Amino acid sequence: MTRDPFEWIGDRAAARLRAGLVRELRPRPADADVLDLASNDYLGLAHHPEVTRAAADAALRWGAGSTGSRLVTGTTELHTELEAELAAFCGFEAALVFATGYAANLAAVTALTAAGTLIVSDAGNHASLIDGCRLSRAETTVVPHRDPEAVAKELGAHDGPALVVTDSVFSVDGDCAPLARLAAVCREPGAALLVDDAHGLGVLGEGGRGSADAAGLAGARGLVCTVTLSKSLGSQGGAVLGPAPVIEHLVNSARTFIFDTGLAPAVVGGALASLRLLRREPDRAASAREAAHRLHWGLTDAGLDAVAPDACVLSVRAPGPEAAVHWAAECRAAGVAVGCFRPPSVPDGISRLRLSARADLTDEQIAEALETIVRTAPRS
Amino acid sequence: MTRDPFEWIGDRAAARLRAGLVRELRPRPADADVLDLASNDYLGLAHHPEVTRAAADAALRWGAGSTGSRLVTGTTELHTELEAELAAFCGFEAALVFATGYAANLAAVTALTAAGTLIVSDAGNHASLIDGCRLSRAETTVVPHRDPEAVAKELGAHDGPALVVTDSVFSVDGDCAPLARLAAVCREPGAALLVDDAHGLGVLGEGGRGSADAAGLAGARGLVCTVTLSKSLGSQGGAVLGPAPVIEHLVNSARTFIFDTGLAPAVVGGALASLRLLRREPDRAASAREAAHRLHWGLTDAGLDAVAPDACVLSVRAPGPEAAVHWAAECRAAGVAVGCFRPPSVPDGISRLRLSARADLTDEQIAEALETIVRTAPRS
Ligand SMILES: Cc1ncc(COP(=O)(O)O)c(C=O)c1O
Ligand SMILES: Cc1ncc(COP(=O)(O)O)c(C=O)c1O
Repeated sequence: MTRDPFEWIGDRAAARLRAGLVRELRPRPADADVLDLASNDYLGLAHHPEVTRAAADAALRWGAGSTGSRLVTGTTELHTELEAELAAFCGFEAALVFATGYAANLAAVTALTAAGTLIVSDAGNHASLIDGCRLSRAETTVVPHRDPEAVAKELGAHDGPALVVTDSVFSVDGDCAPLARLAAVCREPGAALLVDDAHGLGVLGEGGRGSADAAGLAGARGLVCTVTLSKSLGSQGGAVLGPAPVIEHLVNSARTFIFDTGLAPAVVGGALASLRLLRREPDRAASAREAAHRLHWGLTDAGLDAVAPDACVLSVRAPGPEAAVHWAAECRAAGVAVGCFRPPSVPDGISRLRLSARADLTDEQIAEALETIVRTAPRS
Repeated sequence: MTRDPFEWIGDRAAARLRAGLVRELRPRPADADVLDLASNDYLGLAHHPEVTRAAADAALRWGAGSTGSRLVTGTTELHTELEAELAAFCGFEAALVFATGYAANLAAVTALTAAGTLIVSDAGNHASLIDGCRLSRAETTVVPHRDPEAVAKELGAHDGPALVVTDSVFSVDGDCAPLARLAAVCREPGAALLVDDAHGLGVLGEGGRGSADAAGLAGARGLVCTVTLSKSLGSQGGAVLGPAPVIEHLVNSARTFIFDTGLAPAVVGGALASLRLLRREPDRAASAREAAHRLHWGLTDAGLDAVAPDACVLSVRAPGPEAAVHWAAECRAAGVAVGCFRPPSVPDGISRLRLSARADLTDEQIAEALETIVRTAPRS
C-alpha cells in the first residue's frame, strides 16, 4: 500500500487545533433571528424587497446563469446597463463588471502592470490585491500602512512605470487611505493609482458615490477604482472603473475577465436595483456612517479598544485568538452576530471582533448591540 | 502638465488593431432569436423553468447576496445543502462551494501545495489552473499535452510532495485527459492528482456524474476534483470535491474562500435545482454527447478540420484570427452563434471556431447549424 498524498493535511489540522485557530462554517437559516453586525450589507439592501424582486425577475427573464465568458455569450444588455449606470454614478468614464470583486482586483493589478513596472502596495491591503501583485509580472514593494511619504520615496527611487495600490477603507480595521495625498505623490512621477473601494462604495462620498468622489478624485486621469457589488449593493460581483481605454484594455487582456463565466443575471439585476435605490435615497450612506460612529462612541465609552471608523467597519481588539472566538460566541449566543478576525486573516496578527454598521440599525438595536458586546468582553 | 500614466495602453490598442485581435463585447437581448452553439449550457438548463424558478425563489427567500465571507455570514443552509448533494452525486466525501470555478481552481492549487511541492501541469490547462500554479509557492513544470509518460518522468525525478494538475475535458479543443493512466502514474510515487472537471460534470460519467466517475476514480484517495456550476448546471460558482480533511483544510487556508464573499443564494438555488433535475433525468448527459458527435460527423464529412469531441466541446480550425472572426460573424448573421477563439485565448496560437453541443438540440437545429457553418467556411 502506497502512502496517502494528503497525509500532511492531518498534521496541519492538529497544529491549528493546538493554536486555537480552527475555523468552522456555521450555516444560517433563512429566518435567523439575530442582530447582524457581521455582514457587509451596510445599506441593508440584500433583503430589500425591491432588490430581491429585481434579482428574481432577472433570473426568470435572463436565465439562472450567463452561460459563458463575457466575450462569448456571457454579456447581456443587463450587464452593460449596470456598467453604464455604475460608471456614471461613481463619476468614471467606463466600468467593467466581473464575477467577483476578487476577480476585479486580480484583473486590475495584472492588466495595469508589466515586467518593469513597480507596484507600491500598502501593508494593509486586501488579499485579492496581494494575490494580484503576486500574479503580475511586475516587482512589488510593500510600504508601511497609510504612508504617502514612503510611497513618494519608492516612486522617486524608481525609473519607469509605477502603480500605487491601496484599499480605500481597509477591510479589517475600517480606517481610510489618504487618497488625496496619494494622488498628489503619484502626479509628478506619472504613476498610476489603483484604489480598491470595496468598503467605500455606497458609504463614502456624496450619496455613497464612493471614496474617489469623497476625495474629489472621481474620473481623475491616472486613477482606476475597483468596487464590489457584494457589500453595500447587497449582491455579488465586482467592477473596475476608469478611463474608457483602460476598460477596453481589460476586455482584451484581463485573464479573470476573458477566462471566467460572466456574472449571473440575478445578481446583476440585484446590484442594479440597489444602485437605483441608493440614487433615489442618497441619505442611506450618511445613516450608515452615523450608525458606525455611534457604535464606536459606545465601545470606547465602555473602555474597549476600538479603532475610530472612517466608513462602516469597526474593529475591537481582543487579547488573543481564543478570547476573540469566545467573545464572538458569547455575543452570538445573546443574539448579536459579530465577525471574529484572527490570524491568518489579519495582517498584524492581532485578533479582534469586527463589527459593521448598517443604515437601517435602529436606536434600540445599537443599544442592544453595545450592551451585549460590552457585557461579554473578556477582562484583560 | 505631467504625462498620462496610461499612455502605453493606447499603443497596445493600436497593436491589437493591426494584428486583427480586437475583442468586442456584444450584449445580447433577453429574447435573442439565435441558435446557440457558443454557450457552455450543455444540458440546456440555464433557461429551464424549474431552474430559473428555483433561482428566483432563493433570491426572494435568502436575499440578493450572501452578505459576507463564507466564514462570517456568507454560509446559508442552502450552501451546505448544495455541497452535500454535489459531493454525493459525484461520489466524493465532501465538497466546498466557491464564488466561481476560477476561484475554486486558485484555491485547490494553492492550498494543496507548499514550498518544496512539485506541480506537474498539462500544457493545455485552463487559465485558472495556470494562475493557481503562479500563485502557489511550489515549483511548476509544464508537461506536453496529454502525456502520462512525461508526468511519470517528472514525478520520478522529484523527491518530495507532488501535485499533478489537469483539465478533464480541455476547454479549447474538447479533448480528454487520460485520467486513469494519470492516476496510475501518481500512485507509486504518492503524488496527488487535481482534476478540473468544469466541462465533464453533467456530461461524462454515469448520468453526468463527471470525469472521475467515468474513469472509475470517484472518491479515490489522493484525488481532488474541481467543478463549476456555470456550465452544465447553468448557473454560477465553483466547487472543490475531495476527502473531508482536504475540504476542511481549504476552509481554513484557501485565500479565495476566506477572503471572498459567499456565492449569492439565487445562483446556489439555481445550481441545486439543476443538479436535482439531472438526477431525475440522467439521459440528458448522453443526449448532449450524442449531439456533439453528430456535429463532428457533419463537419468532418464536409471536409472541415474538427477535433473529435470527448464531451460537448468541439473546435474547428480556421486559417487565421481574421478569418476566424469573419467566419463567426457570418454564422451569427445567419442566426447561428458560435465561439471564436484566438490568441491569447489559445495555448497553441491557432485560431478556431469553438462549438458546444447541447442536450436539447433538435435534429433540425443540428442540420441548420451544420449547413450554416459549412456554407460560411473560409476557403483555404
Ligand atoms: C477590500 C476588499 N476588496 C475586495 C474584496 C473582494 O470582493 P468580493 O468578495 O466581492 O469578491 C473584499 C471582500 O471580500 C474586500 O474586503
Ligand atoms: C476548464 C475550465 N476551468 C475553470 C473555468 C472557470 O469556471 P468559472 O467560469 O465558473 O469561474 C472554466 C471556464 O470558465 C473552464 O473552462
